[in-house]
Amino acid sequence: MLYGIVVFPEKHVQDFANSWRRRHDPHYTAVPAHLTVRYAEDWSDDELQLAVAHLEQTTSKLPAFSIHLNRVSTFFPVSHVLYLALEDTVSMQKLQENICSGPLAIVEPKYVYTPHVTIGQEISADELHDLFGNLRMQSIDLTSRIDRIHLMYQTENGSWTAYQSFLLRG
Amino acid sequence: MLYGIVVFPEKHVQDFANSWRRRHDPHYTAVPAHLTVRYAEDWSDDELQLAVAHLEQTTSKLPAFSIHLNRVSTFFPVSHVLYLALEDTVSMQKLQENICSGPLAIVEPKYVYTPHVTIGQEISADELHDLFGNLRMQSIDLTSRIDRIHLMYQTENGSWTAYQSFLLRG
Repeated sequence: MLYGIVVFPEKHVQDFANSWRRRHDPHYTAVPAHLTVRYAEDWSDDELQLAVAHLEQTTSKLPAFSIHLNRVSTFFPVSHVLYLALEDTVSMQKLQENICSGPLAIVEPKYVYTPHVTIGQEISADELHDLFGNLRMQSIDLTSRIDRIHLMYQTENGSWTAYQSFLLRG
Repeated sequence: MLYGIVVFPEKHVQDFANSWRRRHDPHYTAVPAHLTVRYAEDWSDDELQLAVAHLEQTTSKLPAFSIHLNRVSTFFPVSHVLYLALEDTVSMQKLQENICSGPLAIVEPKYVYTPHVTIGQEISADELHDLFGNLRMQSIDLTSRIDRIHLMYQTENGSWTAYQSFLLRG
């Protein structure tokens, strides 16, 4: 089964992101607006048990923190994604490093981890440039408390269901 | 903010339910297939804190159990809903009674609690009768382990985001 780990920003951030996702993100209905902590991976039941034990232990030592989303950015030309970017990525990077360790270590990471809230993806290059041209001018000032992570799994229709939450209790 | 409490059956049950929900449930993309434990209610932050404390405490004493879904049924004419029905509803009823107590007591319940997995709703009476006529003949034999509940909240677009899971640890 495919499992992934995400952080959901507070509702007001999701609402803002959804106003763009509705039209520009084909995954809009598959999962709420989120920051990915660990990309989807196929796990056996044994791997799931190991992961849950690791997440229980790791989150017990990690503190809650706040993020500030202050602009729209893009991964173009690597991928046709528009996203809300963090003013300071250190706390999310630390969270990701701690979560993605031990049994959840990523052996050969394809990308440098860049925490973000996707607001558009699979957009044509032309449309992406138009949108980005407008959005980069827009003043963005959203903060969210991050005090938990969510382990999710994917059903056959591509949607994600919550499996377990882990509070940052450090 | 609107909060609700649900149980997600295992993936194979969600997949089966989704094959019907896709065409017959307008809430298909708003929330994964589920059994409602407590209907959505508007809570303040204080009420949320009380609810979380109550859920922590209550679930620590409740045991995990299994459910067996063995037929399709309907709430017609009360509501135009088709659902997967439980062979034995006692365990889900006990869960609901325990969850919906103390600060989560339901003062004037509108319905008798009938645990179910919705597979169609807001269907015209004619279509509901056609569908039910076919589905009541179909042999349904789905089991799912229930070992956790999920507290969810609704975003402005009507979708539900996971807030916290509570394992049945009794």
